[in-house]
Amino acid sequence: MDTHLAASDTGVESRWPRYQGARAGVPGYWYPTVEARRLKGRPLPVTLLGEKIVLVRDGGSVWALNDRCPHRGVPLSAGRREFPGTLTCIYHGWTYRLRDGELAAALTDGPDSPICGKAVVRVKTYATEERAGVIWVFVGEGPAPPLESELPAELLEEDAVAIPMIEEREGDWRLAMENAVDEAHARYLHRRTPFAFFRRFPAFQTDIKMTASADGQWLERSSKAVFGPQTFAEVGVWPKDGPWRRAGGQMVVGRARLPATWVAHHKGWTDCQIFTPTTEGRHLMVQIAVKRVRGPGALLWKLRVWTYIRLLHRIILNRWEDGFIVTAMNAPPERLFRPDIAIIAWRNWCERLAVQQPARPLPPMPSRQD
Amino acid sequence: MDTHLAASDTGVESRWPRYQGARAGVPGYWYPTVEARRLKGRPLPVTLLGEKIVLVRDGGSVWALNDRCPHRGVPLSAGRREFPGTLTCIYHGWTYRLRDGELAAALTDGPDSPICGKAVVRVKTYATEERAGVIWVFVGEGPAPPLESELPAELLEEDAVAIPMIEEREGDWRLAMENAVDEAHARYLHRRTPFAFFRRFPAFQTDIKMTASADGQWLERSSKAVFGPQTFAEVGVWPKDGPWRRAGGQMVVGRARLPATWVAHHKGWTDCQIFTPTTEGRHLMVQIAVKRVRGPGALLWKLRVWTYIRLLHRIILNRWEDGFIVTAMNAPPERLFRPDIAIIAWRNWCERLAVQQPARPLPPMPSRQD
Amino acid sequence: MDTHLAASDTGVESRWPRYQGARAGVPGYWYPTVEARRLKGRPLPVTLLGEKIVLVRDGGSVWALNDRCPHRGVPLSAGRREFPGTLTCIYHGWTYRLRDGELAAALTDGPDSPICGKAVVRVKTYATEERAGVIWVFVGEGPAPPLESELPAELLEEDAVAIPMIEEREGDWRLAMENAVDEAHARYLHRRTPFAFFRRFPAFQTDIKMTASADGQWLERSSKAVFGPQTFAEVGVWPKDGPWRRAGGQMVVGRARLPATWVAHHKGWTDCQIFTPTTEGRHLMVQIAVKRVRGPGALLWKLRVWTYIRLLHRIILNRWEDGFIVTAMNAPPERLFRPDIAIIAWRNWCERLAVQQPARPLPPMPSRQD
Repeated sequence: MDTHLAASDTGVESRWPRYQGARAGVPGYWYPTVEARRLKGRPLPVTLLGEKIVLVRDGGSVWALNDRCPHRGVPLSAGRREFPGTLTCIYHGWTYRLRDGELAAALTDGPDSPICGKAVVRVKTYATEERAGVIWVFVGEGPAPPLESELPAELLEEDAVAIPMIEEREGDWRLAMENAVDEAHARYLHRRTPFAFFRRFPAFQTDIKMTASADGQWLERSSKAVFGPQTFAEVGVWPKDGPWRRAGGQMVVGRARLPATWVAHHKGWTDCQIFTPTTEGRHLMVQIAVKRVRGPGALLWKLRVWTYIRLLHRIILNRWEDGFIVTAMNAPPERLFRPDIAIIAWRNWCERLAVQQPARPLPPMPSRQD
Repeated sequence: MDTHLAASDTGVESRWPRYQGARAGVPGYWYPTVEARRLKGRPLPVTLLGEKIVLVRDGGSVWALNDRCPHRGVPLSAGRREFPGTLTCIYHGWTYRLRDGELAAALTDGPDSPICGKAVVRVKTYATEERAGVIWVFVGEGPAPPLESELPAELLEEDAVAIPMIEEREGDWRLAMENAVDEAHARYLHRRTPFAFFRRFPAFQTDIKMTASADGQWLERSSKAVFGPQTFAEVGVWPKDGPWRRAGGQMVVGRARLPATWVAHHKGWTDCQIFTPTTEGRHLMVQIAVKRVRGPGALLWKLRVWTYIRLLHRIILNRWEDGFIVTAMNAPPERLFRPDIAIIAWRNWCERLAVQQPARPLPPMPSRQD
Repeated sequence: MDTHLAASDTGVESRWPRYQGARAGVPGYWYPTVEARRLKGRPLPVTLLGEKIVLVRDGGSVWALNDRCPHRGVPLSAGRREFPGTLTCIYHGWTYRLRDGELAAALTDGPDSPICGKAVVRVKTYATEERAGVIWVFVGEGPAPPLESELPAELLEEDAVAIPMIEEREGDWRLAMENAVDEAHARYLHRRTPFAFFRRFPAFQTDIKMTASADGQWLERSSKAVFGPQTFAEVGVWPKDGPWRRAGGQMVVGRARLPATWVAHHKGWTDCQIFTPTTEGRHLMVQIAVKRVRGPGALLWKLRVWTYIRLLHRIILNRWEDGFIVTAMNAPPERLFRPDIAIIAWRNWCERLAVQQPARPLPPMPSRQD
């Protein structure tokens, strides 16, 4: 299949209207937001898929409300936890029940305030879960499915030790997710990254395939690596790797699932990456390193994550290399090439399987201008 | 009267089209701008109701011109006072008469320049007054009424000692003015402000009324205070004030007038607050503390303002508490409740009595989206 | 000729539609960009007339490509010089020939990548030259004329020692160019500039003429200076220069040419100023001081430029005085006066002689609003 020709001839920008309209994300899924340890006594504002949300820890649970008092539009995240099970707006003391968002009291209008309980002043609530050290929020219409049904299995093991790192980044969530799905760029952009410096590194890969998993939830990537110097007719020999590259060398096996999850298998541990859209053109880079380990091994694992993996993986490779690209990309328009079959498969997958449409879908991106 | 129902059912956003179009202010009134002591030898640029204006002190008077040379659009505030009674543009030496804005000379075209005195190069002038330590400018069409006819009487007393403080703030001038008119928020937002920490503090108020003054210029607020803990069916008892609250306790009596003036009576002194719109979404918070006092008492009064009132009133209560709210409010849409009858009365007042329409009225705010 | 009346009566904004649409510059000309010594081993991004361009020094020549990889829109200026004569995109190793922009290799798709050489992935190239210590780029359609045909003759002399200074500034390139063409402002704005402090300084000038040069390439300015105090009927005597002004005193003779070049003759040296548009509302201020000198005199000339001329001319006069004005101007609308005949002649010249239209012409500026 000549992917390049197919892509360039048909105008790639109009092939995935739902995917391309989802500039602020795909609703109907659970999204990770903040590390659980950051949510303490004070209400915490977050933005997910363009919606402003306030998280509150109360009575051993985590709750989420739309972060806007319907009265005059003051953020509820500036409010106080005046009574158990409620959040009170800082401005006039409008007090909302955390479990359903109903106005339980309007303090400054007295106990007989006629506005309490009215439907027009109810605040939207969101299902939340605390898992793997992260607060998860369901953003979408209708009831939330069990969080477990959407999580990578690695996070659900009884002896899994999951260590999250979260940072907000500039860049469209889809460019970040496609960068994860794409293997080819690793061959050039990441060729000299310290994390892989001593490994045998493929020159390129062939037979890239994206295949649905047995349970239909995952899109799994496979390919064949080609090693060693290659002769390019026009420019000469590449790559010219030094003799120090000896270790390892196999391709990273990975799999993607909706809404924006990429799971990569490293030796002995798994890297879950979720690209949570915040507002248009920005996303949270949520990375959860997970390993099955008990007892003192857990401490060693944490040490390894907070030193080696944090520096070489998170900061150098994910932030400086990938993060730079996602910020710098100015696309569409685009001209895809053979390895982009992985990206095309991912876009097709989203187009066909996304459970909900955006509430107010944005128009597709502008057509190509080259 | 069920204010809440009335407001929410009819779509509050379309009830006051003139008021809602006045995003950059209501023209036809005197507005305070800068402390008089700040205007010295150099021309001073200010922005009022979206108009750029240059203030000049010359020959014992204060003058105001539109801050733009008609020649090539250079700000006159960058110019020099080259000759008495005129202001000269820094670029080509076009020299304007302060009293009427006429082009008196175009220095770099020589004494016979044919452009002098032409109507198309006349600069708009504004009436100004210096009073209560502040420069006031009339912004609007036609001749200015006497400043005295628009000032609070407290500022006109012969023994009044007025002390102004002015700062520019983010936020729509109407949200700031409505916050002043609204009494209910004080019961919650300001409950713990240091200024009122030792006073008996009402839980809420009833019978809120806004009544026109005898002279028809003012809208006066009255209400009845309810003190002591209240039992709210859904959430329990509130407030739970400590036993240290003993002093005072009566409601602040205040009154509003066009264009954006709020006067509050404190024990022994008066606080005049004027919310001068600068450009859309920003305003000057002009506060003039005034007391009738003579001789050494004046010095004590100044000391009290520059220490206690400045810190507890201006900075903590007005800037950190009210100023935060005005910046954070994201309205409309809105859902009003019973105490908002004060705000509704104020909007009706403006809608009916504003003397002039904005020169280029902005469209009403977008309708509610909840 | 009563220029003022003509200008103000007809609505100046609609008299030069091509000139006024050229907000991002006039295409079809060579433009200076960066000092040649700044372009070393690393690709250097520049913006000219709204186009993002990457400059590369390779094999003794300078090359310029459009700074965007057609694949996914990553800037080529982030790329590497992996093979001679090419530039490789940092993301997937797409490798472009510098001389024609063709895709010579797509490294991460292997030597048999079918996308190489396809027309849809060719990158636009630009003609470049290195001259007078500056990199020049031709921006426009079709083949570039010889650079020499567009340069001031002073830069082409065999013994010319040219010293460039370049800085990016806020402000429309046309306002900067018109400020150079305009002589009248010097009489007021620059009256006290240190550079001219001890010189006899005209009060104003008469008989301003802009005349085409014999070769039809230049528009040459001439005028007659009027010295000494003048009596202005309305305001009195001006100027009142101190007795220290004795030296020199003649008018600066200068000439303009398309696209945005102004050449001023000083005693013993020449100042070439080119206002290269970068993006709308910004420009490069390119100043090349040039003198015919050989041997040790060249060193003295460089010393003089880097001390005296740099401080008094470049920083004080050109940056603080002229640069401030160009940033502060808020025009159109405008009301021209008699000396603006020079600006009007320049606009007419551009309107008639500009060789190309902007690719996507912007609409004319808004009409006057006074």
